[in-house]
Amino acid sequence: MIKDRTAIAGIGETNFGKLLAISEERLACEAILAALDDAGIVAGEVDGLCSYTMETTDATEVARNIGAGDITFFSQVAYGGGAGCATVAHGAMAVATGQANVVVAWRSRKRSARSARIWASGTESLMATGRWSRPWGLLRPADEIAMLARRYMHEYGATRESLAEVALALRAHANRNPHATMHSRPLTREEYMSARWVSEPLCLFDCCLESDGALAAVIVSSERARDCRRPPVYIHAIAQAMPRQIFSMTNYYAEDPLLTPSFVCGRQLWRDADFAPGDVKVAQIYDAFSPLILFALEGFGFCKRGEAAEFVSNGRLRWDGAGPAVNTAGGSLSEAYVHGFNMITEGVRQMRGTSTAQVEDADCCLVASAECVPSGALLLRR
Amino acid sequence: MIKDRTAIAGIGETNFGKLLAISEERLACEAILAALDDAGIVAGEVDGLCSYTMETTDATEVARNIGAGDITFFSQVAYGGGAGCATVAHGAMAVATGQANVVVAWRSRKRSARSARIWASGTESLMATGRWSRPWGLLRPADEIAMLARRYMHEYGATRESLAEVALALRAHANRNPHATMHSRPLTREEYMSARWVSEPLCLFDCCLESDGALAAVIVSSERARDCRRPPVYIHAIAQAMPRQIFSMTNYYAEDPLLTPSFVCGRQLWRDADFAPGDVKVAQIYDAFSPLILFALEGFGFCKRGEAAEFVSNGRLRWDGAGPAVNTAGGSLSEAYVHGFNMITEGVRQMRGTSTAQVEDADCCLVASAECVPSGALLLRR
Repeated sequence: MIKDRTAIAGIGETNFGKLLAISEERLACEAILAALDDAGIVAGEVDGLCSYTMETTDATEVARNIGAGDITFFSQVAYGGGAGCATVAHGAMAVATGQANVVVAWRSRKRSARSARIWASGTESLMATGRWSRPWGLLRPADEIAMLARRYMHEYGATRESLAEVALALRAHANRNPHATMHSRPLTREEYMSARWVSEPLCLFDCCLESDGALAAVIVSSERARDCRRPPVYIHAIAQAMPRQIFSMTNYYAEDPLLTPSFVCGRQLWRDADFAPGDVKVAQIYDAFSPLILFALEGFGFCKRGEAAEFVSNGRLRWDGAGPAVNTAGGSLSEAYVHGFNMITEGVRQMRGTSTAQVEDADCCLVASAECVPSGALLLRR
Repeated sequence: MIKDRTAIAGIGETNFGKLLAISEERLACEAILAALDDAGIVAGEVDGLCSYTMETTDATEVARNIGAGDITFFSQVAYGGGAGCATVAHGAMAVATGQANVVVAWRSRKRSARSARIWASGTESLMATGRWSRPWGLLRPADEIAMLARRYMHEYGATRESLAEVALALRAHANRNPHATMHSRPLTREEYMSARWVSEPLCLFDCCLESDGALAAVIVSSERARDCRRPPVYIHAIAQAMPRQIFSMTNYYAEDPLLTPSFVCGRQLWRDADFAPGDVKVAQIYDAFSPLILFALEGFGFCKRGEAAEFVSNGRLRWDGAGPAVNTAGGSLSEAYVHGFNMITEGVRQMRGTSTAQVEDADCCLVASAECVPSGALLLRR
């Protein structure tokens, strides 16, 4: 029903930085207008808008300020970094079912300001399931994921070496990407190993950047995309996943706390796709914290459960490694943290052949949103 | 793409009341379980969840507590009462595209508590476009819509008589519906005319109730629906609308402030439908305030612009009137105000033939969410 019927025709992004002087609203509009320009589509044609529930700029403000036409489809997706791929997936569904013709998905965020971290507010901390973990000192997302990373190490005998492999591969990609925050900052294994703890076993380099910036993608029918400025990047398969009985970020109460959303996303994607994990030479996987990539590699079936730590050794995730190459623009760890939307734009660049760490002969690219929260994934095709 | 491929197989609702002693979360689960029971589908089959961004109960909480399976589609829709129909529409898109098999859409709300009225908080009042109107005394939704109602009267010479027609028709329907808050409270034209102002020209009876309660609907493929407990109610057409340059609730700055979302929703619906407005004998139209029904009757093409005030005279909206019969369970004015989800459940009852103000020989039913905010609509078919 969805397979290859829609495509990403344009992508756009602002600069990434700290304490940028313009508003989230303006960042959003700039990224969207850049994406439309990339596609060669005028804003008046936009009739669909998808974003995160955490987006602070109202969609009506975006629509008015970019000069959109009558909007006939709009949706939002919850769960922070879990939302990225689903915004594109919803756009694909809207176009495939004739509810809209030109859908814009976006995320704008000024994360670098301390006040943007909602988990730091006392009010939020005591709501919902936070009640069960906050009083015991799990205050930050890093604390919550550290518990799951420790469990993973305990279950499978993994060590910090595998987390270092992730961080070093992504930094190497950032060093090739002039747009990446860490472009000019090489990272050595020794620096990684001697870095301060953020939340043991996660050190500074296991945790994402805090960035300001915005990104956007334009979804149209495949037929329309073939008439646009850039080669179409087909949306081959889409998935969302909220595994049964999940506790978002604190999945400590389940029989199998490491049965993450990727396992459900993977099942959905491979059910619908003409590709299997072994065909995937490049993947963009949400990395607010380095262990999420280990979890996802297992969830999407690149290796068996418990084997990711071994799987990633010897620079396998690097663009010139055994593959799949992961987060070839540097990811959230080393390019920018904008709730994972940069996974989508880099996935598109890989399929266009314009990445600064281009993987040769990659026919498809997996894009996966956050692990350990309800999430989504895309399989893009050249 | 969507037409008749999916259906509403079950509906559920809790009691409506004031200051109900149970939580919004529990109300949500009760309504959803009632809807699943109505359809004869077990909760473990649920794999899609759609609700309002204003819903306070997290979807993971709902999924865990009803005992849902792995969820493979979820979305949320913004704009308060604008969201109702779109939650069902998104469910229909998910099922039609194979992303989910059993989608639950719901709304739970404890509106009767003063603290639930976010527009009453000082913080919200000064955010976004409220900046342009709040300082001049437009504090409540009633104040904002009163301005548009006054403009309508000014443009077209309408009077309070037409608003009275709306309120009296809906109260007459509530008087037939034992589940309605105003079931045992008849209303006369004299009482209407002598009621106190809430925000001139809107009197007490032009404004919706404030209710606690929850409602839900179950969306499945039409094929599956034919095997369920109740006759399938087909989702014939869906629409969403955020007209270009709209200001939500305060569309005072446009060239044509009364060119409401219904005009765009109507265009979308009738484009896709096998029916025209003249075929519609019954409609459920969001009525936080009585004039919204006049706006929508014009937007959906039941009469020409400026003619709704005359159109509704002589009890036309009553279940035994010239038609279309509107809000046959009593609507937000006289049944309950739960962000308009009761429009959907009553639409289903009309198509099943089980309304307490059943319209004979109605082949289809229009369901429309809020006017004057980005919104949505459904055309249901028997």
